Amino acid sequence: MVRALAAGRLLLVLIALFPSTSLAQTPAAVLPQDVRSTAATLQKEALAGTKAYDIVRSLTVEVGPRPAGSKAYDAAVEWGLRTLKSLGFSNVHAEKATVPHWVRGAESGEILAPYRQPVHLAALGGSIGTPEEGIEAEVVEVPSLDAVDKLDPAQVQGKIVFYDVHMERQKDGSGYGRAVPVRGAGASRAAKLGAVAVLIRSIGTDNNRTPHTGGMRYQEGVRQIPAAALSNPDADLLAAEIASGKPVTFRLKLGARALPEVETASVVGEIPGREKPEEIVLLGAHLDSWDLGTGAIDDGAGVAIMVEAARRIGQLPQKPRRTIRVVLYANEEFGLSGARAYVEAHKDELARHVMAGESDFGSGRVWRIASRVDPAKLPVVADLAKLLGVEQGKNDAGGGADLGPLAPAHVPVIALAQDGTYYFDYHHTANDTLDKINPKDLDQNVAAWAAVAYTVADMPGDLGRAPEGEGRE
Amino acid sequence: MVRALAAGRLLLVLIALFPSTSLAQTPAAVLPQDVRSTAATLQKEALAGTKAYDIVRSLTVEVGPRPAGSKAYDAAVEWGLRTLKSLGFSNVHAEKATVPHWVRGAESGEILAPYRQPVHLAALGGSIGTPEEGIEAEVVEVPSLDAVDKLDPAQVQGKIVFYDVHMERQKDGSGYGRAVPVRGAGASRAAKLGAVAVLIRSIGTDNNRTPHTGGMRYQEGVRQIPAAALSNPDADLLAAEIASGKPVTFRLKLGARALPEVETASVVGEIPGREKPEEIVLLGAHLDSWDLGTGAIDDGAGVAIMVEAARRIGQLPQKPRRTIRVVLYANEEFGLSGARAYVEAHKDELARHVMAGESDFGSGRVWRIASRVDPAKLPVVADLAKLLGVEQGKNDAGGGADLGPLAPAHVPVIALAQDGTYYFDYHHTANDTLDKINPKDLDQNVAAWAAVAYTVADMPGDLGRAPEGEGRE
Repeated sequence: MVRALAAGRLLLVLIALFPSTSLAQTPAAVLPQDVRSTAATLQKEALAGTKAYDIVRSLTVEVGPRPAGSKAYDAAVEWGLRTLKSLGFSNVHAEKATVPHWVRGAESGEILAPYRQPVHLAALGGSIGTPEEGIEAEVVEVPSLDAVDKLDPAQVQGKIVFYDVHMERQKDGSGYGRAVPVRGAGASRAAKLGAVAVLIRSIGTDNNRTPHTGGMRYQEGVRQIPAAALSNPDADLLAAEIASGKPVTFRLKLGARALPEVETASVVGEIPGREKPEEIVLLGAHLDSWDLGTGAIDDGAGVAIMVEAARRIGQLPQKPRRTIRVVLYANEEFGLSGARAYVEAHKDELARHVMAGESDFGSGRVWRIASRVDPAKLPVVADLAKLLGVEQGKNDAGGGADLGPLAPAHVPVIALAQDGTYYFDYHHTANDTLDKINPKDLDQNVAAWAAVAYTVADMPGDLGRAPEGEGRE
Repeated sequence: MVRALAAGRLLLVLIALFPSTSLAQTPAAVLPQDVRSTAATLQKEALAGTKAYDIVRSLTVEVGPRPAGSKAYDAAVEWGLRTLKSLGFSNVHAEKATVPHWVRGAESGEILAPYRQPVHLAALGGSIGTPEEGIEAEVVEVPSLDAVDKLDPAQVQGKIVFYDVHMERQKDGSGYGRAVPVRGAGASRAAKLGAVAVLIRSIGTDNNRTPHTGGMRYQEGVRQIPAAALSNPDADLLAAEIASGKPVTFRLKLGARALPEVETASVVGEIPGREKPEEIVLLGAHLDSWDLGTGAIDDGAGVAIMVEAARRIGQLPQKPRRTIRVVLYANEEFGLSGARAYVEAHKDELARHVMAGESDFGSGRVWRIASRVDPAKLPVVADLAKLLGVEQGKNDAGGGADLGPLAPAHVPVIALAQDGTYYFDYHHTANDTLDKINPKDLDQNVAAWAAVAYTVADMPGDLGRAPEGEGRE
């Protein structure tokens, strides 16, 4: 008692001395003690070890690569239904989504002159193929997307444009946003000037001979030309041959083609709420992957994190007031088909979605919580930040690509930023495999999401409605 | 003067107090001051920056992959002759060597059951191919080379044996020696028991989807079966499918085949000695590479280090007494053809080879000097260790695979151990590319070899003759 009084006096003295410190400004906790305490227990227990690694191992070993439209993706849907049922989820079901079906086919590339060397490349998702004999043309190099517009069409006509844009390594992955426009828009921008094909340096931070694929889009009314990414060492090689000053010629062969759209599905399962089951806390991840790797970090990790976080909440002696709904989206990578179908199918209940979160950035540790909630509710986010022991970010979070279509309904978003320092070494490559996941980091993600989802599902109030806009990625 | 006296007295006191310390035992330097001083200058100047990176860039960009017997290897010989001449070497010439000509062809692998997944693999060098339709068989896993012998032939008959041997990461690369026997001998050991093919986990320390090739050998009188290495993530995947307890089947397609032997050459150039040009300090590296990468660390780095070390000695105002001879060996990887041809062609002058050294372990920094010299001459090695600022190793160094054939002639060996912590992440893979080389580390190697080669070429005495035996790698 004496010690407590002394500590109280000390606190007053400190506040008097440092009126502008965070100590003085910290608002009182807004979450009730019982909610905080259960959330903290969920967190602590998850940090001691979870099933998440087993879940992502099962998905990567038993299904593996599962691009939109493929038979393997259908196997992933079966896996999702089977897994959620066996883990005790309620209302497990598939929700229809129509997805594009693009296939890679055989592909190869070779620098023909001045120094003949084979290279490692991968067609960008959505690219058309080349004629069977390939395309042979001289290469013209540009350092950026905008630089291509400044070229004289005479320099580009009949040539292959090589975009040599380097992506920077950043913890928050922000180098991706700066580098990636060349992947989506590079082909049409070059085609306008008469180019016959496009090569890009991989949008990735590694120096492995594993090229990074990813979606691209053709601009309407512009001639479609094939587009592929060179691995970074191969981009270095092509740049070095160009630096020799001699004309560089290249042969590109892509077997890529689009097949008819496919009817497939997202997978949904729930932990029903005990008092307000009609109010939904949505935990999302995407079930599809690119075709090159086994989709461990993109997005097997997210699937495992969200399924395991919800499962652990479902194991509590008392379920939270609201429903936790896990949505494993179809085709995030290639047009958000599952996310759009979800919004259409659930439009009548979107107003009762009290929160949405997505895990789609690998398995790096959570280091920040951001949000897009009613600004009046930010003290709840501050409480969650303290609970998780992480920084509080801005209130403009997008939260994940699959959450974009929820934005017009003003569904509040919680985003847990993960350490993405190494994510783009492996993202969209053959190297996206199980060994890239650290099970302890995965558990830390489960702990954070379980604590957040439980809190928002059980707390007396809610997060209001999100402000206008989609927020930032 | 007073200070010097005081220091001298302190030294005497220290020697009296610690009679067994290295301080007391350090022998007086045996190398003349002028030799030491020139060697130190060579070293210091090389550390400030050399042409070595330009040399390995030129080899990897202008020639690239150059396996024994290929047209690209012939281009490498032309490159070597051109480069040595342009760098001012004397007596630049090709020396005939007859080499095997193994080609990879198209290759692929797929786990068919229980969970169908494509894998990344590479035929081992020297493997036969499969029939065009491939080999489909059940997989049996063994944890080591010796474990296969303990299997009942009934368990192996008609199956594919998968050797799941993990290589450990070590600075000195010693994990390689422990893991690699399975690559050379695994196929025949399994074939004896009736296996139809062999898969090994890559002999490498990475987790990239870039399988590690390397030489294998068939035992005489044993049926030849195809052999390939899975990348480490793919070995994990196969092991995980096997761990499911369900029967695992695999389809292996290898287009590998042996073509007729090819007449080609090693490349030699010299910095002639000023007093005893008939006495030779041999600096070796190998000009061939595996076919998957551009041969940057194996052994473009060694070529660049040795060529540049010798070139810098050649630029001195006064050449050393003895001749520095750079030998860029043909076909180290696939049977030491160039090294054997060299010994045959030069047998009459091997007694006048006063030293041989090889650089064939990438571009990691030199951290130890080892030797195989007349034990009476070890003080010279101790002096060199001090000059380089590195540890002194044992007197049982092999010095490099290409130096093995020199051993019966008792040619003294100096070996500079390089930091191999990351070497086996890339060794014998498509990932062996220029970006894996740090130019400053390469310069440090040049500095060390220039100092060593100059010293041995210019010092009054020599290193005697090497003891019996080939030493250790």
